[in-house]
Amino acid sequence: MTAPAAKVAARELLMPRRTVCVFSGGMDSTTLLYQLFDAGDEVLAVSFDYGQRHRKELEFAARTAARLEIEHRITDISAVSGLLQGNALTSGSVAVPHGHYQDESMRVTVVPNRNMIMMAIAGGYAVARGCDRLAVAVHAGDHAVYPDCRPEFIRNFEAALRSGNYEPVAVYAPFTGWTKTDIVRLGLKLGIDYERDTWSCYEGGAEPCGRCGTCVERAEALAAAAG
Amino acid sequence: MTAPAAKVAARELLMPRRTVCVFSGGMDSTTLLYQLFDAGDEVLAVSFDYGQRHRKELEFAARTAARLEIEHRITDISAVSGLLQGNALTSGSVAVPHGHYQDESMRVTVVPNRNMIMMAIAGGYAVARGCDRLAVAVHAGDHAVYPDCRPEFIRNFEAALRSGNYEPVAVYAPFTGWTKTDIVRLGLKLGIDYERDTWSCYEGGAEPCGRCGTCVERAEALAAAAG
Repeated sequence: MTAPAAKVAARELLMPRRTVCVFSGGMDSTTLLYQLFDAGDEVLAVSFDYGQRHRKELEFAARTAARLEIEHRITDISAVSGLLQGNALTSGSVAVPHGHYQDESMRVTVVPNRNMIMMAIAGGYAVARGCDRLAVAVHAGDHAVYPDCRPEFIRNFEAALRSGNYEPVAVYAPFTGWTKTDIVRLGLKLGIDYERDTWSCYEGGAEPCGRCGTCVERAEALAAAAG
Repeated sequence: MTAPAAKVAARELLMPRRTVCVFSGGMDSTTLLYQLFDAGDEVLAVSFDYGQRHRKELEFAARTAARLEIEHRITDISAVSGLLQGNALTSGSVAVPHGHYQDESMRVTVVPNRNMIMMAIAGGYAVARGCDRLAVAVHAGDHAVYPDCRPEFIRNFEAALRSGNYEPVAVYAPFTGWTKTDIVRLGLKLGIDYERDTWSCYEGGAEPCGRCGTCVERAEALAAAAG
């Protein structure tokens, strides 16, 4: 290593990374947030209110960010979800009702291009705040349903983000090759109390229902990671 | 050409393209909308209210879309602009005042990653509505200031959009190598009355001020295209 290169490397070691983390408040992005925090990054967390099934996940997100003393912003993009849900809504400026019915919920979960939209906004936020990384918690378990959770999408998105801005922002997606169990195993090492810190249930009840798809997936991952 | 290929080509000639057009109501995107309309595309126009200097451009957009009988949606992303304007605003869910002052206006014009955000949303809209193209009016005159107007960004964005969705949506950006005068020359051929149909002035007055940067650029392009 040349002397100037050594100096740069030393500076990089001393300077904490500044990272924007797309943070839903679910298990995956909570684990990512803890990982960044543990690594000493200066982290800015951003959540999106896109008219999701209930606001419980966002409440957990706010609580976790406060606990770690991480700056947290929630941005309302529910008008965008309205646009992307096709033909049902026809007025110019659309507001989506925050429904509590599962049908409404399930429809919201398939907003096309959702990851790209959230990452484009979070990427702009990274540029605006002088951050050099954008962190997202997409992972292997999502691949089958969502093409925008694949490594190929992450690579192409990063190229677009770099060519669209003068300030280089790298995309950090460490979980793309991981299973949910891998993620939870890391989270337990980092000291996350998933019961206290995260919410996954599709229903908006006081307690998790224990029966819906995400409740089952969550229980399986927790059991496998502990085993 | 083999027989099946000929059949496909014939079908493509008969089937109009379905195109989502990012449509601000300014000279460039109005020209693009007319070009798509002239080519026989089924066009869906989408405008974004990002807290821009005034709503006049959006009013012109709505009027032009109505004249061409093109379905038009205006989506409010002003909360996103609030997030991207850095440190000034600190509340979780942010609403940006629609200011009429030039300082406020100019700040809004440098929202980082703005094209990518609008194109990501419009790309999702294209998927949701079964369209095979996303049209944007970025052009050479914008290159110096905005990296996300360059062909390299358009190519990378298209790759990300394709890998992030199962439904292929091509990005159509015919003006990337053009000047404003080239665009206006095409528009005049297509029968656009720019005085009636578009608004460029930075000020929000009843008549264009004739002195601001966009008024001057507009007058120059009109004179050059007519000459």
